[in-house]
Amino acid sequence: MRLSRFFMPTLKEDPKEAQIASHRLMLRAGMIQQSSAGIYSWLPLGHMVLKNIEKIVREEQNKAGALEILMPTIQPADLWRESDRYDDYGKEMLRIEDRHGRAMLYGPTNEEQVTDIFRSNVKSYKDLPLNLYHIQWKFRDEVRPRFGVMRGREFLMKDAYSFDLDYENSKITYNRMFVAYLKTYARLGLQAIPLRADTGPIGGDLSHEFIILADTGESEVFYHKDILNLPTPDAKDHSPEELQTLVDEWTSYYAAADEMHDAENCTVGEGDLITRRGIEVGHIFHFGQKYSEKMGASVAGPDGKDVNVSMGSYGIGVSRLVGGIIEACHDDNGIIWPEEVAPFKVGLINLKSGDDACDAACDEFYNKLQAAGVDVLYDDTSDRAGGKFAKMDLIGLPWQVTIGPRGLKSGVVEFKNRASGEKEELSPEAALEKLIG
Amino acid sequence: MRLSRFFMPTLKEDPKEAQIASHRLMLRAGMIQQSSAGIYSWLPLGHMVLKNIEKIVREEQNKAGALEILMPTIQPADLWRESDRYDDYGKEMLRIEDRHGRAMLYGPTNEEQVTDIFRSNVKSYKDLPLNLYHIQWKFRDEVRPRFGVMRGREFLMKDAYSFDLDYENSKITYNRMFVAYLKTYARLGLQAIPLRADTGPIGGDLSHEFIILADTGESEVFYHKDILNLPTPDAKDHSPEELQTLVDEWTSYYAAADEMHDAENCTVGEGDLITRRGIEVGHIFHFGQKYSEKMGASVAGPDGKDVNVSMGSYGIGVSRLVGGIIEACHDDNGIIWPEEVAPFKVGLINLKSGDDACDAACDEFYNKLQAAGVDVLYDDTSDRAGGKFAKMDLIGLPWQVTIGPRGLKSGVVEFKNRASGEKEELSPEAALEKLIG
Repeated sequence: MRLSRFFMPTLKEDPKEAQIASHRLMLRAGMIQQSSAGIYSWLPLGHMVLKNIEKIVREEQNKAGALEILMPTIQPADLWRESDRYDDYGKEMLRIEDRHGRAMLYGPTNEEQVTDIFRSNVKSYKDLPLNLYHIQWKFRDEVRPRFGVMRGREFLMKDAYSFDLDYENSKITYNRMFVAYLKTYARLGLQAIPLRADTGPIGGDLSHEFIILADTGESEVFYHKDILNLPTPDAKDHSPEELQTLVDEWTSYYAAADEMHDAENCTVGEGDLITRRGIEVGHIFHFGQKYSEKMGASVAGPDGKDVNVSMGSYGIGVSRLVGGIIEACHDDNGIIWPEEVAPFKVGLINLKSGDDACDAACDEFYNKLQAAGVDVLYDDTSDRAGGKFAKMDLIGLPWQVTIGPRGLKSGVVEFKNRASGEKEELSPEAALEKLIG
Repeated sequence: MRLSRFFMPTLKEDPKEAQIASHRLMLRAGMIQQSSAGIYSWLPLGHMVLKNIEKIVREEQNKAGALEILMPTIQPADLWRESDRYDDYGKEMLRIEDRHGRAMLYGPTNEEQVTDIFRSNVKSYKDLPLNLYHIQWKFRDEVRPRFGVMRGREFLMKDAYSFDLDYENSKITYNRMFVAYLKTYARLGLQAIPLRADTGPIGGDLSHEFIILADTGESEVFYHKDILNLPTPDAKDHSPEELQTLVDEWTSYYAAADEMHDAENCTVGEGDLITRRGIEVGHIFHFGQKYSEKMGASVAGPDGKDVNVSMGSYGIGVSRLVGGIIEACHDDNGIIWPEEVAPFKVGLINLKSGDDACDAACDEFYNKLQAAGVDVLYDDTSDRAGGKFAKMDLIGLPWQVTIGPRGLKSGVVEFKNRASGEKEELSPEAALEKLIG
C-alpha cells in the first residue's frame, strides 16, 4: 500500500483525552476515531490489526473443534427473562423498544441466545459434544467508558459456548479451550497467565481468566515466577488425558488477581512470588446446568432419560486485545507490533520522493515485496525525512527499510528492526532476502 | 468437515412461516434460525456462505481502491440532526436512549458518520480521492419483516462512501464502483443488470440499482434482451476513459424497474423488450454536496479556497445476497450454489458407514481432498442412503461423490454435478483429479 493512497490520519501531539498508552497511541497512529463515549470507528490501520487478531482467534477455535456461527446483536428480552438475568443485569444492558413496543436489548453476551439455538435443534446425546462460537459486536453501557478500546461500550468479542452430556465431558471441553487459549495468545506474540477466577454474573463453579502483564494493567497480579517459563502447548491435537496434564501443569503454579489473592495463606516463597499489573484478555467459565435447567436445554441420554446439558462459555475480547497488545508492546516512540498481528510487515521509506533514482529503487523494492506477498506500507509522500521516521516508529511495523540518495550511491539500503532498534546497511537484494526468505 | 462433527440441523418438512424459496431452503438446510421477527442467527452452513460472499465483495472493493474501515453500529443522534435526517427517517430507525439519557440510534446507513470521519481528518484536495467502505450490521425496523434474510431488520451490508474534489472526479469514482459491482456479481456467479434508479431518501442526482433475475423477485423489470449478452469487464485496472466507455455501454440498453418504466415512451421494439421479476442486490448513488454542505465537509482546493467535497455512496446487501443467490439458483430438490460461494465444494457420501471397506475408501478420499485444500463435507453418519442423497441435494454443494460397497467392487465412485444432475462412474483417482486438478 502506498501511503499517498492510504488513509492514516496520524497526530503529532498527544490527544488530551487519552490517559493510557494504548489509547494515546491508537489515536496518534490514526487507528481509531471516537464516535461517541466508548464507541469507536476503526480506521484502516486499526481495522487491519483487528482483523489479524480475529483471524488467529478464529483459527485456534476451529482447530479446537468449535464451530463458527453468528448470532445477531439485537436480542429479544423474553429470552433473558427465562434465565432471570433481564432484571439482574442492571443499567449496563442497553435496553431497546422496537416500533411495536417489544422489549429488545443489544446483547452484552449470548448464553441465552445460544442455549435457545441448542434446545431448538439438539435432542440426543449422540449429537454431543457441541461447541459453538461467534465473533460479534457486543454492547455494555459502562457508566464511565474510558481507556479507549480497553473499556469501550461497543466491543468485539469471540464467545464460545459448549454443550456436553455431563460434568466429566464438559471438563474435557473446558480443558481443550484452556489449552486453545494458551496457543492463541502465544500466536498473538503475548505471554498470558491463567488465573483462577471468580465466576461473577455468568455464574458457575470453575473459571479462569487470562491476563497479560503490562505496567498499566487494571489489576494487581500475584504469581509464581516459574509460570513464565512454561512452554506453550504444541499445535497438535491433544487427547483428554494430555489436556488434563497440561491444565494441571499450568494451574500448579500460584497465580491470582488481587481480589482472589490471600497473602496470609499464600505458600509461595518470598523470592518466588512476583507482583505485577495485568490486563484481562480472556475469561473461561464452566457453569454446568445453570442455563440448561432454567431454559430447558436437555437431550435424551444413552438410557433414554432426559438430561440437562452441562455448559461452559469462553470469551476473548478481540477489540480489547488491540489495546492490550499495545500496552504490552510499545516504547516512547510508539507501538511495536508482534509480527503476526502487525498491519503491515514492512515499512518502506523513500527518503527523497521525486528524485528519479530514489523513486525507481523504492518502486522496484516495493513491487518485489508485493509480488512475494509481503505486506508493505510504502511512504512515497513528500514529507520530511524526520517526519517519515517518526511516523514509522509510531505505527510500529516490525521492519523498516529506508532508501535514500546517499545509500543508493554505495548500493545499500538501511534495514531496521523496530523492536530492538538495531540498524544495518544491506544491499537491496540482501534486505529482500531477509524479508521474503 | 465430517457431518458427524458439524452442526447442520436440516428439516425434512417445509416450515410454515416461509413464503419464498430462499427463506424455506435456508431454514430447511439449517443455515439460519430466527431469533425474533426479521432477526436471524447464522448457523455454520449459512455463516460460511455469508463469509464467502463478504470475501468476494471485499476483494473487489479493495481492487477498486476503496479502503476498509469499520464504523460502529450505534451512532449518536446528534450527527443525524446535522443532516436533518433524524426526524425524516421515521420509525424504520431504531432509536435508543443510553443510561445517561443520550439519544442514540442503530445505524440504518452511514453517510453522516463517515462524513464526520472525513471532515475531522481531511483538509486538503491533495488527500483526494478517498473512498472508504465497511462491512457492518445495520438495522432497519421494518414494519412487517418477511422473506427471511431478504427483508430482515438486522442485516449485513457493504457500504462505501467516496469523496472527490468536484463532479468530474466523483463521476470517475462512480463509474469505477459501477464496474466493480459488475465484476463482483460475476464472481458471485450472478448475472446482474444495472437499472437507472430513483435516489430515494439518500438523495442525489445519479443512481443505479443492480438486480438479479428471479421469478420470486420483488419488482417487475423491463430490459432490452441484449443486455444479458454483454461481457463482464476484465479484471484489469481501467483508466477513467475506459470506465466511462464501459458504463456507457452497459447503460445504452434500456433497463428499468416498474416504478421507472414508461411504457408509452419506451423505444425498445416489442420483440426485444423482456419483462421479468428482479431482486435488488446493490444500489449506488452520486449525491454530490448534499451531506458535505450540511455537515461542513470541505477541503482547501488548489487555489486555496474551501470546497465542499462531492460524494457518493455504494451499497451491497451481503446477507440479502445469500437469499438472492438462492432465489436465482435452486430447483425442486434444494439449493444449487455457484462454486465461488458454496460452503463446501464437495459433498462426500459414505453409502454404508460402519462397513470397513467403505469407511476406508471414504476416509482416504476425504483425506486426499483435505490435503489438497478442497473444502469437503463428508457424510459419515449412519443415516439411510435416501436421506443422505436428499440432504446433499438440499444443501446444494456443487459436486457430490458417492462411495458404496457395490461401486467399490468394480473400482468406481459416483460423481455428480448438482447443477446439471449429470452423473458418471469414475475411478476414485479420476474423481479426485476432477476436483483437485
